[in-house]
Formats: sequence, structure tokens, C-alpha cells
Amino acid sequence: MALNIRELSKKLAHIRMKVEVRNVFVLCKAHEPGLVENTKEVAEWLLGLDGRRYNVYVEETLQNDPSFDAAGILSRNPSAAGRLRYWTNALCAERPMTFDIVLALGGDGTVLYVSYLFQRIVPPVLCFALGSLGFLTKFDFATHRAILTRAFSDGITVALRLRFEATVMRSQPRAEGKGKLWKDGCRDARGRERDLIEELIGEESDDHHTHAPDGTHNILNEVVLDRGPNPTMSTIEVFGDNEHFTTVQADGICIATPTGSTAYNLAAGGSLCHPDNPVILLTAICAHTLSFRPIILPDTIVMRVGVPYDARTGSWASFDGRDRVELRPGDYVTISASRFPFPSVLPMDRKNEDWIDSISRTLNWNSRQRQKAFKK
Amino acid sequence: MALNIRELSKKLAHIRMKVEVRNVFVLCKAHEPGLVENTKEVAEWLLGLDGRRYNVYVEETLQNDPSFDAAGILSRNPSAAGRLRYWTNALCAERPMTFDIVLALGGDGTVLYVSYLFQRIVPPVLCFALGSLGFLTKFDFATHRAILTRAFSDGITVALRLRFEATVMRSQPRAEGKGKLWKDGCRDARGRERDLIEELIGEESDDHHTHAPDGTHNILNEVVLDRGPNPTMSTIEVFGDNEHFTTVQADGICIATPTGSTAYNLAAGGSLCHPDNPVILLTAICAHTLSFRPIILPDTIVMRVGVPYDARTGSWASFDGRDRVELRPGDYVTISASRFPFPSVLPMDRKNEDWIDSISRTLNWNSRQRQKAFKK
Amino acid sequence: MALNIRELSKKLAHIRMKVEVRNVFVLCKAHEPGLVENTKEVAEWLLGLDGRRYNVYVEETLQNDPSFDAAGILSRNPSAAGRLRYWTNALCAERPMTFDIVLALGGDGTVLYVSYLFQRIVPPVLCFALGSLGFLTKFDFATHRAILTRAFSDGITVALRLRFEATVMRSQPRAEGKGKLWKDGCRDARGRERDLIEELIGEESDDHHTHAPDGTHNILNEVVLDRGPNPTMSTIEVFGDNEHFTTVQADGICIATPTGSTAYNLAAGGSLCHPDNPVILLTAICAHTLSFRPIILPDTIVMRVGVPYDARTGSWASFDGRDRVELRPGDYVTISASRFPFPSVLPMDRKNEDWIDSISRTLNWNSRQRQKAFKK
Amino acid sequence: MALNIRELSKKLAHIRMKVEVRNVFVLCKAHEPGLVENTKEVAEWLLGLDGRRYNVYVEETLQNDPSFDAAGILSRNPSAAGRLRYWTNALCAERPMTFDIVLALGGDGTVLYVSYLFQRIVPPVLCFALGSLGFLTKFDFATHRAILTRAFSDGITVALRLRFEATVMRSQPRAEGKGKLWKDGCRDARGRERDLIEELIGEESDDHHTHAPDGTHNILNEVVLDRGPNPTMSTIEVFGDNEHFTTVQADGICIATPTGSTAYNLAAGGSLCHPDNPVILLTAICAHTLSFRPIILPDTIVMRVGVPYDARTGSWASFDGRDRVELRPGDYVTISASRFPFPSVLPMDRKNEDWIDSISRTLNWNSRQRQKAFKK
Repeated sequence: MALNIRELSKKLAHIRMKVEVRNVFVLCKAHEPGLVENTKEVAEWLLGLDGRRYNVYVEETLQNDPSFDAAGILSRNPSAAGRLRYWTNALCAERPMTFDIVLALGGDGTVLYVSYLFQRIVPPVLCFALGSLGFLTKFDFATHRAILTRAFSDGITVALRLRFEATVMRSQPRAEGKGKLWKDGCRDARGRERDLIEELIGEESDDHHTHAPDGTHNILNEVVLDRGPNPTMSTIEVFGDNEHFTTVQADGICIATPTGSTAYNLAAGGSLCHPDNPVILLTAICAHTLSFRPIILPDTIVMRVGVPYDARTGSWASFDGRDRVELRPGDYVTISASRFPFPSVLPMDRKNEDWIDSISRTLNWNSRQRQKAFKK
Repeated sequence: MALNIRELSKKLAHIRMKVEVRNVFVLCKAHEPGLVENTKEVAEWLLGLDGRRYNVYVEETLQNDPSFDAAGILSRNPSAAGRLRYWTNALCAERPMTFDIVLALGGDGTVLYVSYLFQRIVPPVLCFALGSLGFLTKFDFATHRAILTRAFSDGITVALRLRFEATVMRSQPRAEGKGKLWKDGCRDARGRERDLIEELIGEESDDHHTHAPDGTHNILNEVVLDRGPNPTMSTIEVFGDNEHFTTVQADGICIATPTGSTAYNLAAGGSLCHPDNPVILLTAICAHTLSFRPIILPDTIVMRVGVPYDARTGSWASFDGRDRVELRPGDYVTISASRFPFPSVLPMDRKNEDWIDSISRTLNWNSRQRQKAFKK
Repeated sequence: MALNIRELSKKLAHIRMKVEVRNVFVLCKAHEPGLVENTKEVAEWLLGLDGRRYNVYVEETLQNDPSFDAAGILSRNPSAAGRLRYWTNALCAERPMTFDIVLALGGDGTVLYVSYLFQRIVPPVLCFALGSLGFLTKFDFATHRAILTRAFSDGITVALRLRFEATVMRSQPRAEGKGKLWKDGCRDARGRERDLIEELIGEESDDHHTHAPDGTHNILNEVVLDRGPNPTMSTIEVFGDNEHFTTVQADGICIATPTGSTAYNLAAGGSLCHPDNPVILLTAICAHTLSFRPIILPDTIVMRVGVPYDARTGSWASFDGRDRVELRPGDYVTISASRFPFPSVLPMDRKNEDWIDSISRTLNWNSRQRQKAFKK
Repeated sequence: MALNIRELSKKLAHIRMKVEVRNVFVLCKAHEPGLVENTKEVAEWLLGLDGRRYNVYVEETLQNDPSFDAAGILSRNPSAAGRLRYWTNALCAERPMTFDIVLALGGDGTVLYVSYLFQRIVPPVLCFALGSLGFLTKFDFATHRAILTRAFSDGITVALRLRFEATVMRSQPRAEGKGKLWKDGCRDARGRERDLIEELIGEESDDHHTHAPDGTHNILNEVVLDRGPNPTMSTIEVFGDNEHFTTVQADGICIATPTGSTAYNLAAGGSLCHPDNPVILLTAICAHTLSFRPIILPDTIVMRVGVPYDARTGSWASFDGRDRVELRPGDYVTISASRFPFPSVLPMDRKNEDWIDSISRTLNWNSRQRQKAFKK
């Protein structure tokens, strides 16, 4: 299933589409007062456009936020009644098709938050940078009226960015072991030490009986396993499909999407990766051996990374830097290409050069062409 | 065109095929006497097989090589007359379809030599390691009779490995500049300094007039531009499609296929890359800035790397470590996915795990599973 | 003061000394039963030597350990009464001169534990490896009788290894701020935001009033500041003497001695460093910028690394992987060459080659000479 | 001998000295016309100072350079006759004590050229940057009158920077082998293959008979051995004192001083190193194994790096990027601390912070203090 979608998204990596926009979702980080003003500005402008056709959804917490002043908006534009609406996390999770487009105001962190809200289908996401342009925030907020006017009339081009689906798998005590503490979970019914490699890819492997799922995350940047509060290094078993790759001794391991290649992956020594590449980036964090190098794998592979039963300590998993959970000995995480990619709206006129522009800004490259482009 | 083949090869990345073998090409490095013995052994065995159906081509230089002793072979097996044949480089270049399969005896260098011989269509290549197994030599010579018997009867599985087509483009003196020394070639007809960026991607760019091709190479591992005998660093302009990426100050630059990721690319700090990934690996060699990191690009991009007109020195290009040529200011090399991939025959029973096995051997990984595999 | 000792230790980096041994300190990791046997073996042998001159100190916990069986030792050798003694952590801390020599049985971790026990003066330390030789455990336990006999008669050669003295400095609330929560500690008496750089090296800097010491550690390997359980990166201010070097955005920072260069420093990308070099190794852990590289500083510099007042989160400090403490905004750690180096007993006959031998083993170097040495 | 000087230079690492200046040596890169103007400006100003006490030496090639216009200088200031003098390379080599101070105008390359000119004793060197400040050019040319006036009246502070003395050692044919080609030089008189490791540190090693010196270089930055025009990697034997460290398979090897740490060493992946550290930085260039890491060694060690007799190709050595020579199989280079350090004049008021300032500029560090400093 994942494969079909992947094949499809590759063909459609850059989709030019006409979106019939009626329902606009606006996201800002509501904690910072300035951002509420920006949200208000966008919402009020959209609600006031000719034809009164747009429904605008803002975060529920703004309903009573004096900076947002919903009452003021409605009094200045009575036609907005019923069209100014409020979204909740539950609505994003359960009825994502409600929204025709998402406008994200902020930085790359805001875009990650959109990915977090929409764990399954994601509407096209158009990101306005409130500071400098980033890898994911490609439009300057100052130009938002022109950008949106053109997008609604001419259509948009969307890049489908690979997300990962990551599921925590908890080791289950064997039949006779029920109710025991987890330390005992490291031995099987007959008291033998359990072996993660054997359970996952051994000849009698059958992880339906040995492990149970405990939460799934669709992520845009990376899954990280690290030593968390432990002062000593982690031991992590790495599997790809039905192969045991290696046992890594390290501060942790980072499994990044191409989009995430410029985030934690880069800090850990990984390569920069064009977002159209259908690959998985596997990088150790401070490996305590010299024999590990960053590895680029096809995104058709199902990765599994876990803590061996005989590890002295557990590891901690996080998903786009969130939802941190402890993995105890015997637990693991599966990571594979998600069926739900992230549709990022591209700049209209520079869509091919877009990624190189971002890289160039980040690395302070000395491209003359770029310098010209920036001066415009 | 490149794109279509690429799409095709992706679908067919692992092709199971029945080859009707009649004409067998055998390659060894003829310089080492031991290898001639191996060639003789394989050839004589093939010629003596029941049915007398196989024609065996060995290198022309063996015709009069006493270690090979062609006369002895024919006297022991008169039916081999007419079936023991000799190949030349010209035959490989002009009539590659003559051969149903290539048997390469040696190390990874021998496999690169096959790629060098067959610049266009490459027959399926089955590689026997005479020493330890390598990334490309996946079969132990000791087992060659069993392997070949099964391959000829049951068919083979072939992985189509990406090759690059690289063409040297020489800066041409402008009309009035004919016959002048190349230093003058750095100025245009009106005496203005020429500018490589302008000529390649400027608004009036038209490299049919400014540059002419000077040799094309299909390569399996990498194209390297380096400073050659110059003690100082090189300046290299890097372009992707119609974008100027950056000007690199470095010892050089390495543009590797996934197959080449474990060769020079790794020494230069690049990532390991699974050979099925449709990507280009761009890595600077000893960059003299801190702002360069290895970059993974889609193999649909056409790369161009060249020497700016105002560079103090030229650079040197090499292709799979061969055919070293100087690039003078204004010259460049284009690199793109080749229409002629390299069909590498995979081990029958471990084809999925094959790459990880190779990596594991190379990095001395501590995989328990692997250790088991080796003990067999 | 630190300077004088340092000058002295440089001259005396390798001291050949005759130690008049009467009091022998024996350390093992008492948790593992096998190690208690080894301790018993060494103790009983020493107590039984002719002349009955040696007092042997073992860990207090062994007094009633049945594996150690003190009563058995005394019954077999009544002369040991009064000479078999027990050490406590307090005795090490308060009267380190009690011991003429320390015998450490175990691995490199055991040697770090000796350093931990002896926070001020350290007796000469002779380390027997119970497994493979390490960077600090240079003698094979199997040879301990011969080694000790010769050491006691001929004397020993000692390398004085640099240790760091690290002190946690806690930000103090300003006069009027007493009793407030620490968050308020980030503002001064007049409500202005405090500034760590200003407080440490500003024109009116006077950290006697702004900070108070909270624990000092003499360490042999490294001080690490990291993000601990925080999923996001740390912000760390780095000072050398009265200079603000930079603000590092990273997973953390590692400040290692030359001895520690082969430990966490290596995992973080630092260089290998010969233990005789009088230097400090400063290495960022997963820096989130491209502009940081490992730095080698003279050990005459006083380093200070801390958390800025406006940091979103604190950092965690650890000392040789122990004594993990949280640093809150405004806190810092000073690190300088300790007055109390670590006297490590060197192998008699290979003292010059000793470090290269260790490196060679660790990196799997292909030294022919080394291979010969190992075969002996 | 090297050791004594080293001990001395360490104590005197920063020497404050009053120089009685009469003879001023001025160096610029004469090729660039602008620089000749600068030289002329400095020379004419010095010659015109009250007291007419300074003799000014400029490069001999300026004597007839119309841009310099020596006749014009003398006609405007007849007292300069006899005091405007010309230096030659031979004078620098043979009578370096002639000069009380060297003024270098240009960039870091000009400073390296001073080191090249003065192969033995080097006068104090004061460097004016004509562009942006560098690691070695610490004074802005715009301020040269104020800087020199103060230096001549108040004295200067000098940092003695470590240089290396590097000697090429050529393999000599054994007695009976005289007159043979060098290929035969790889076999001894009895036809056995010669072995570099055996000859240098074997039990009967005696390199007075096997090797002869062929040129010595005092260098300020680094000695590099590399593959030169060879497309394949080099094989290099590395020795420290009487130890064989390892056989490196790489593009080359870089042996840098602390001053050189920011040059080629950094490009090859080495650490930044404070110039006061008494160390040698050993870094492989694109090592073809994963088991090499940059190594910091005491500068009391004598390094030897050479080409094994059975190498397929030679290597090329260069010294501060100059004097490139081929090393054939059996040749090697010795590298040790030079008796002739490089006395670099430090900025008066910021001498402690000087190096960090340079690093900070180079790495674009975000130091607030630094930013303030730059704004001055």
C-alpha cells in the first residue's frame, strides 16, 4: 500500500493543481501576541474579499483572545458571521478534508506543527515566513495578499513531501510472565534470555506475539532514538526489512526524511538531501565506533530500531522533536514511508530552484546568481 | 530520453531473466599469470560442456599466450575449434550484443574495466572474486561451476546499476579569437572577460556556440575533478540543470553514482548509498570553506562542473579513475544518468540482503546474523 | 598555582621513581563476583610474601563478603592479622598519603573510579586489565606477580596525566531577589534581564557577587554539558580566560583532557591526542551550525561554559560520566588544569610506544611492527 | 638541540622586547602594481622620518620599477641616498641578522613568503593586511604610521611560532646496485626486496647507509605528501621517533604546525589549534579506510613519512605549498620542530585575545563581544 502511494507520489512529485478554495485553515503560534495580530489581519482580509465565499478557520483559543477580537471582526464585517470558524485538534484529526488549504504563519517549527495536527490526510500547506525564509517557509508574509490572490485564481503547484509513519512496538511478557515487572520481561517463559534479533528476524520470528503497538506518528523530519537522561551511550539494534544491519553503540540514531536532512540529520553529520529523493537517511549520533557512516536507503525499506533485551539502560524516542517516550529493553520502533505525504505549496516562478535557494541561504553559499536573486 | 530509461530501470531495478546463453565473454586481468590460468580453466570447462553449444570469447592477447595455451585446449577438445574465439576492445565497442553474458574474474577493478569496455549496451555481468568478496564481485570463484550451471539452466536476476554519461565540453575561442592561445580564449571578441556562469545559464546562454564536446564516458563509480599536479586548491563552478549552485574552493569535487558511494565518495566524506537509489552524490574533496556538505541529488538532474575563466589554474577530470584530462579555464564536464545502465548479476538466494552484506564486511559491522552467514 | 604544578609536571611528565611500598591499595569493582576472586588472589599473595612487610587495603564491603572470605585468609596466614585492612571512600578523600601504590583490577572504568576516589593527591596507579588491554589498563592480570615483584624491587615509571578541576558555579539571586524562584533570578534587582557574558567578562564583572560554587570535581577524561532529557538543543556560552569565544547551539559540548581524547571526545568528532600534550580539547556535540570545529587550547587557559539567562531550557553537566547535575539559566562550570595529576604507572620496556600501541589496537591499524609485538 | 630551543621558546612564547630599529626590511608581492605603491609609501615615509636614522630595504626588482620610482624618492629626499637599499634572496639566506624588523604587506601568503625567505634566523615580522585581517596579518595597513611609530618607541611583543624543519631523504642504491635505475633500488645487493620499515626502525636499521638528505625546508604551515598527478591513492608509511605508526592508504597526509591548523589541515578535517600549543597535527587526506582520525602529537617527536619500496606509484611532497618534489619508493621526509621559530609581532592591546579574534572572524562566530570589538 505504502509502495503504491509512493509510486504515485513520485510521478506526481510536483503537482500543478487548481484548488477550489472555500475553507481556509489559518495556523499561527498563538503564544506570541504579534502572531495573533498577523492571523487577525489575514482572517479579516479573507473574510472581506468580494463574493464572501471564504470560510476562515482559526485556532479555537482565539475565540476569546482580546488581541484577536473576534467580536470586532464581526462588527466591522457582519457578513463574516458563520464564516469565521474555529478549528480544534480533534477536527484536524477526524475531518481533515474540511479544509481546502492551510496557511501557516511562522517559521519551520510552525510547519512541523501542521504535520503534527494532520496525522493522516494533509491539505495543501502554504507557509508564510514571519522572519527570514526557511526550508519550509517559502513565502514572505509581506506579500501574502498578492500570493493568495494569485493562488486562488491561477491554482498552485504542490510538492508531495515524504513523511514517515513510525509506530512504537512494546515488548510483551510471554504467556507465563504476565503481571511481572518489565525486568522479568527480558526472559521467556522458560527463563531463557530473550533476544530481539531472534524475535524480529529469527526463523520462528512472529512479532505479533512478542510485541504490541503503542502509538503511531506521521512525521515530516525525523525519528530520533537517544540516551535521554542517561549519561552513558545507548545500544541500538538496527533492522531493514528482514535484515539485521548492525548493533550501534552511540548517543543515539537519527532516521530522517529528505525534508529532515537539513535539521537534526545535518547536526549529526548526515548529508543534505534533495526533498524529491525517495530515500531514508540513517545517521548515528556520536557513534562510539569508527565503523559507522551515514547511510542512504530506499524509502521502500521498512526500518526497525530497538533496544536489545540485555541493554543496561533504555533509550528515548522522539518524533519531529515531540512525543518523547522511553523505550525499555525489548521495545522497538518501526519506520516506513507514510501513505500520507505532506503537500507543500511551492513558489510559483522559482519552483525548480527552490531547494537550492534554501540550501544556499543556509550554507552561505557564494552563488553570484543567488546574490542577484536576493537583491530583487 | 535519459528519463524514460530511468523510469524503466526503476521498475526493472531487479529483473529476473532467462538468458539463452550461447556466447560467453570472459575477462580477466591478463597481466597476472595466475589469472590467465583461471581464464583457461573456465574457458576449457565451458567448451567441454555437453551439447558443445557455448562459444567462449577471451581476450585477444591470450591467443599466443603460452600460459593460456590455446593449441593445447584445441588438441584436447577438437570440438572447440571455431568456438574458442577472441574479443578485442573494438568488438566490445561496436558489437556488444554479440555476447550473452560477461564473466569477470578478479576484483572490483575488473568490474570497472567491464564498464569501461562496454561504453554503450552492457551484457549481464557475473563477477567472480579471486580474493575476498567485494561490492561488485559477489561470487566466489571456487563455486563457479555450480553458479554457472544453475544460471544457464534457471536464469539469472540482474540489478540495473545506474551509470553516468559524462562529456567533456571545451571552451571555444570566439569567432575573432581563432588560432590564439587559450589564455586569450578567456576574453570574448570584444576583449571582455568571458564568464562561465553567464555562458551556461545567463539570459543569452547558448553553449552550442561557446563550447564543443571532446569525449564522452559512461562511468559506474564517479567523475572526479581535482587539482592534479597543482599544489594549490581548485576553483570549481557547480551547476544543476539551469541553476548555478556554488563556487567550490577545494582540492576537488566527486560526483558519484550509488555504486560509487563506497569508493572515492566515502574517502571524501560522503554517505554510503544503497545502489537502488536513483540519486547523484555530490561531495567536495577537502573543501577550503566550512560551508560545504555532501549533497544527494535526484538522478534526473543534469550536473555541470567546470573551471571559471578567471581561475589561476586548471583542474583535472578523471572517469572511474581513468582517462585523466586537463580542464582549462572555461572548460566543463556535463554529468547525467546514462541510457546504458550496468546489469549486475545478483546472488540467487540473498539478493535482498546483498548490499548490507557488502557494507557489513567493509565496515566490520558487528552483526550477529552476518557472522552466522560467514560461518556457513 | 595550577601553572606551577603544570610546569613541574611537564618536566616530570615521565618520572622514574623508586617507591618504598608498604601500603598497597587494591581496587576492583566489587559487584562482579569474579573480580572479588581476583582481589582475594592478589591480596593473599601480597600478604604472604617474605618479610611480611605489606599492608593490603581492600574495599570495606569485602570485610564480610563470603567470596572474599577474610577469615579464611587470616586462618591460612595468621601473620596477615593487622595487615589486611579496609579502605573507605572517606579514607581516600582525607588521607590519600596512606597508600604507596594503587592496584586497579578491571577495565578503563575502574581507572576512572580511582580518579573519582582520589579527588586530591593520587598515589601511583598500576592497572591490570581483566579483559583486553585498554588505554589506561596496560598490564595483563595474568602477569601480575612478575610485574609487581619487579616494580617493588626496581621501581616504577610514572606518567603524570593531566586532570581537570571543574567547579559548578550557581547563579545567585541579586540582593533584593532573595527567596524568589529561580526564574526571577534571571532579572537583576532593578528588573533588568541579567546577562551572563556581562557578569563574567563585562567591565563591571565580579562573579564573587553573582555566582557561588556548588561542588568541585577532579576529572581524568572529560566534562560534558548536554541537553539531558530535553528533546531540543542546548545553548551554551563558551569563555576562555577573559574572552567570550562563542555561543554554541548544539546537543552539548565536551571538554576533554588528552587522556579523554579517546573517549567521548572521539565520538563527538574530536582528534586523538597524545597524553603528554598540555592541552584542552573543546568539541561541540552535534553542533547545529556548520561553523564549529574541534579546538585545541593550551591547558593554561581557564575555561568557563554556561547557560545564558535567556535560554529556554537548562543543560546538564557530568564529570567523567558521573555526578550529573542540572545547570539552570545563569549557572556555569569552570574548568582548568588540576593541581592533582593522575600518576599512571607505565609498562617498563615499552613506555615510549605505549600510546601508539593503544591507538593501534583501537583503530585496528595495520602496523606490521605492532602485529609482531602482539604475537609475542 | 631542537628540544632546548623548544623549552626556551615555550618559556618565551610571548616575548616583550625593545628593538633598536635601524634596518627595516619591507616585503610586498611585487607582481601586483597596487602593492608597489604601498611599499613606496611606507619606504618614503620611513626614510623621511626625523633623525634620518632608518635604512629601508626593498626587493631588488623595485630598483628599476617605474611604479616604485626610486629616483623620484631620492630626488624628493636626498638624505635617503645610501639608506634606500635593496635586498636579494641571497642576503636573506646568508645575513638575516642584517634586518632588525620585517614589514610584510599583503595577505597570509606574504607571511609564508617571509618564512620561505628566512630559512634560518627570522627577524621579528610585523604584518599589515592590505585586505581583510587574516590569521597572520594582524594589522590594518591604514594604521601603519601609528603602529610603527609606537612599535619603534615602546617596543613590541613577539610570539614565537613553531616552525618545522623538514628534510627529504632519498633512498640510496646499495653498494652493488650503483648506477642502476631506481626500480632496481628496491632490491638489496642480494636481490631481496628492500623494506622501508626494516631500514628505518628494524634491529639493524642504519639510515646513514640507506638514505641521503636531499634538501631541507623550514616551514610555518605544513608538509603535505599527496598523490600528485596520480589518479589513484597513495600508500604512505608513518613513523614517530622509533615507532612505525601505520601504513596509510589515502590521497595524502598533512603534517601541520599549530599555525597551519587553519590552513590545509582544516580542509583535511583536522582541528583548530591554538598557536601556543607545542604540538604536531597529523591528518590524513581522504583516507581510504575508516580507521584513521586526526592525531595531535607532542612537538618533541621526530616524524618520518615515506613511500614503501613496493608502492605502485610515488608520492609528492610540498612544503608550505612550495618546492614540490616527487618521492619515489623508498624515499621519505623527516619532520621535527625547527630550531628557528617564526617571531610574529602581536597587536599591542589585544595580544591574548588575538587568536580567538582570528578564529571568530574565520568561522563567523556569533560572539557579541567580538561584534563590539569590530564596531570600534
